[in-house]
Amino acid sequence: MSQRIRNFNPGPAALPLAALEKARDELLDFRNTGMSVLEVSHRSKEFDAVMEETVGRVKRLLGLDDNFQVLFLQGGASFQFCMIPMNLSLPDRPVAYVDTGTWSTKAIKEARIQGKDVKVAASSEDRNYAYIPKDLSVPSDAAYLHLTSNNTIKGTQWAKFPETDGAPLVCDMSSDIFSRAFDPAPFGLIYAGAQKNAGPSGVTLAILRKDMLERVPDHLPTMLKYSTFVEKNSLFNTPPTFGIYMVGLVLEWLEESVGGLDKMEALNNRKAELLYGYLDGQDFFRGTADADSRSKMNVTFRLPSEDLEKRFVAEALAQGLGGLKGHRSVGGCRASIYNAVSLEAVEALVTFMKKFAAKS
Amino acid sequence: MSQRIRNFNPGPAALPLAALEKARDELLDFRNTGMSVLEVSHRSKEFDAVMEETVGRVKRLLGLDDNFQVLFLQGGASFQFCMIPMNLSLPDRPVAYVDTGTWSTKAIKEARIQGKDVKVAASSEDRNYAYIPKDLSVPSDAAYLHLTSNNTIKGTQWAKFPETDGAPLVCDMSSDIFSRAFDPAPFGLIYAGAQKNAGPSGVTLAILRKDMLERVPDHLPTMLKYSTFVEKNSLFNTPPTFGIYMVGLVLEWLEESVGGLDKMEALNNRKAELLYGYLDGQDFFRGTADADSRSKMNVTFRLPSEDLEKRFVAEALAQGLGGLKGHRSVGGCRASIYNAVSLEAVEALVTFMKKFAAKS
Repeated sequence: MSQRIRNFNPGPAALPLAALEKARDELLDFRNTGMSVLEVSHRSKEFDAVMEETVGRVKRLLGLDDNFQVLFLQGGASFQFCMIPMNLSLPDRPVAYVDTGTWSTKAIKEARIQGKDVKVAASSEDRNYAYIPKDLSVPSDAAYLHLTSNNTIKGTQWAKFPETDGAPLVCDMSSDIFSRAFDPAPFGLIYAGAQKNAGPSGVTLAILRKDMLERVPDHLPTMLKYSTFVEKNSLFNTPPTFGIYMVGLVLEWLEESVGGLDKMEALNNRKAELLYGYLDGQDFFRGTADADSRSKMNVTFRLPSEDLEKRFVAEALAQGLGGLKGHRSVGGCRASIYNAVSLEAVEALVTFMKKFAAKS
Repeated sequence: MSQRIRNFNPGPAALPLAALEKARDELLDFRNTGMSVLEVSHRSKEFDAVMEETVGRVKRLLGLDDNFQVLFLQGGASFQFCMIPMNLSLPDRPVAYVDTGTWSTKAIKEARIQGKDVKVAASSEDRNYAYIPKDLSVPSDAAYLHLTSNNTIKGTQWAKFPETDGAPLVCDMSSDIFSRAFDPAPFGLIYAGAQKNAGPSGVTLAILRKDMLERVPDHLPTMLKYSTFVEKNSLFNTPPTFGIYMVGLVLEWLEESVGGLDKMEALNNRKAELLYGYLDGQDFFRGTADADSRSKMNVTFRLPSEDLEKRFVAEALAQGLGGLKGHRSVGGCRASIYNAVSLEAVEALVTFMKKFAAKS
């Protein structure tokens, strides 16, 4: 039997040990029902309680008032890329996107497939998406401004969200939701595949500001309308029950063990400072993102050669440090240090990096 | 700590104990990776193995040749109701549906929302969907004929699939896939939400005959095209990894403990004969479906009064027999006796029913 490794996977990613242990311990008998949570009806009072608790935790952690509806959907952020322009665009008005690479680019592509008038308000394509653009050109009549808060592949993150002249923000927070505090008021929609900071893959969190519902066209297929899920509280059809349950356990850990979003953010800052502090103080490893744009969730870096990168990833794994390979589209190395990755794991990584640099 | 109950839930439903125990035992360390299966990358060799094993089991169990592609999607059967007409209809040709209630009715509604020329080839609405229609009127140029193989709510099931004059069958097998052997050749698409016979909720099995790919229109949003998932072997984006893993464990049990689909069918026949045999030989309980149309998966019945039905469901639960309440849209009682419900559980149910009838 192996020991649990230090998991720097980009997603699906490390989950809090306490959440996994609780899931394991009650997997055959959920809350004295005599059934697994996998076997419990989504219309039972037991599952109602899971849903209510989990929605409550999302609202408390993010400071959401009753203007927001918390939804659990399926299909990942990629599916939202097509739902968003279908539901939230407005007749004869453009939709605005900032292109910070990969996920933003895909979101733009899906809006264009639907024939929407897409305005790219800013792009960092000129330098391979190594930075977050500062100057945005958002049309005054834009139906929304779409952002990707954190780019897992390029290792960039919006440090502060831009202000608009009225256009609601629509934001893919798949890889940094619950990692820091922010003001939700300007957001018409926040969405996130759960499999980085919030739970397992197969469940998508969507937080919709209720005034957005007026935009949903009547003629859309039922399962492509946000209103369908709002009206039925995510229970129009059978939801991904286990995924929602796991999100609940992860957020229980975040509220009750970590102590909430401010404490989580402080801890995430320490982890990022430790790793970037080391990167900045040497010249064997080289960070790929601009200093003012770098992500506190995904730390991307290169070694002097691809051969050394391969050895680094393999030797790290042999030392119990997993998931350090960069995304296949960009190569290099990447340490994803999501909420469930401990400060101690980051310390162990830095120690290993120092040793590897010294002997190479 | 309660004991595990006998679970007659309609879905999410009973899962094989062996599958749950294996999931529990390796939940913190999946195949010596030092990670939970919930934390493993969907692009890792370990998850590749899960996918390959699970697809292999589906193909062996259903006798699928290489003309078929096995896909794992999200959104449930309800999402397929909109994907099917988008992908599989043909220009200037009607689409045909048999309306056997609830799910068929919803599938028809979604095709009509898209403006398709829907021909209802037959309907059993005249007697509240208590039977499977025998005479079908399928237009000779129909792009496909859609069926719901088993109606969980009305307790009906196609005993034998109809022949068409060339139109491929498209079939929602959510509630009876893997319960019996059948010839897959006439099916252009078989789809099933996993949460009855195949696994937990949150994963949808789709089996597409490859000639159907020619029908997929280019202009559709990426996540609404079957071709997207075929080209990337269900890995265009992050799939519901845990759900796919659980389907693999359930099918492992079906192949290796039960001994395959023929043995499963024989066992399901015994379970259904036991329960219907009892129902037919008394007059306290009254089955709701016509004898030649009744489901071997969902046995629906009424008691002499709604008050007695409430008492029946409550007393059964107190005796460790759970999930016997009928669907909220029709009332009454229902015993769902899917693959993972043992013969012994059905025997216990019949024993309880006899006692309840005797004292009432």
